[in-house]
Amino acid sequence: MVVLGIDPGFATIGYGVIEELNGVKRTLDYGAIKTPKELTFPERLCLIERGVQTLIKKFKPDEIALEELFFNTNITTGINVAHARGVIVATCYKNCQKLFEYTPLQIKQALTGYGRAEKKQIQYMTANLLGLAKIPRPDDAADALAVALTHLNTKRFAPSFGIK
Amino acid sequence: MVVLGIDPGFATIGYGVIEELNGVKRTLDYGAIKTPKELTFPERLCLIERGVQTLIKKFKPDEIALEELFFNTNITTGINVAHARGVIVATCYKNCQKLFEYTPLQIKQALTGYGRAEKKQIQYMTANLLGLAKIPRPDDAADALAVALTHLNTKRFAPSFGIK
Repeated sequence: MVVLGIDPGFATIGYGVIEELNGVKRTLDYGAIKTPKELTFPERLCLIERGVQTLIKKFKPDEIALEELFFNTNITTGINVAHARGVIVATCYKNCQKLFEYTPLQIKQALTGYGRAEKKQIQYMTANLLGLAKIPRPDDAADALAVALTHLNTKRFAPSFGIK
Repeated sequence: MVVLGIDPGFATIGYGVIEELNGVKRTLDYGAIKTPKELTFPERLCLIERGVQTLIKKFKPDEIALEELFFNTNITTGINVAHARGVIVATCYKNCQKLFEYTPLQIKQALTGYGRAEKKQIQYMTANLLGLAKIPRPDDAADALAVALTHLNTKRFAPSFGIK
């Protein structure tokens, strides 16, 4: 069972790929898709689509877990991320119908047992649970591994993707 | 020259297709893509993508004009529309790099000469300028024709699509 975790974004899209075999988890890859500021808005969206397609083609995930949109105080950033997330969701769904999403709260609870855990604590637990020697970088990649791990650890309770 | 106008949405995506030949404009088609509530969020996004692809395949537009996202008071609706709009922009851009966008203000000014014109006035002018016997329905289709018409009437001033 291979799970692709994605931390949606517009400038930086984190990804993490975990394989679970006989209860043992192995990190296959992690990193980030970046869209240069020099490109136009449509070019950046198309780059995100191609990046996600490439990941799916390479790792053939059985299931995909996305972090839910966290709407921060910057509305322009939030709108751009929502545009990008639409492209990511459609691209994932076309290739893998087993698509799930988790809120930051669910991720914190799944990995630390505490809904108000700090980012550093989540990252520490992610590295620890995956047996990684150090915290994955960039943060977006660590977040993507965290959502993939959350999915593997809680999916028997998970409803399928069904936001409004 | 064929221009496809799109009024982005999540539940209803308006479209309008106008051909201009020797200064004469002809309405080729208009209508709306609808995504049923019964479908899941990813299914609705994929339906939007297929709908836009079908329109592009059918009418082979030389240029595409989109209405800019108007962020109303309902933030959930706005976020869903932004997801859908991301899919629409990426799908259009993959098939036609001549992509333009116009704000509601630009559309009002282009079609009525007045930036605070009411919706009915825009619709009346759209039907009038296109020689249509009645106001196109639904509203989303009329809006899509309005943005296509705005593009045809003002494109010599238009910068290419370049939102942040």
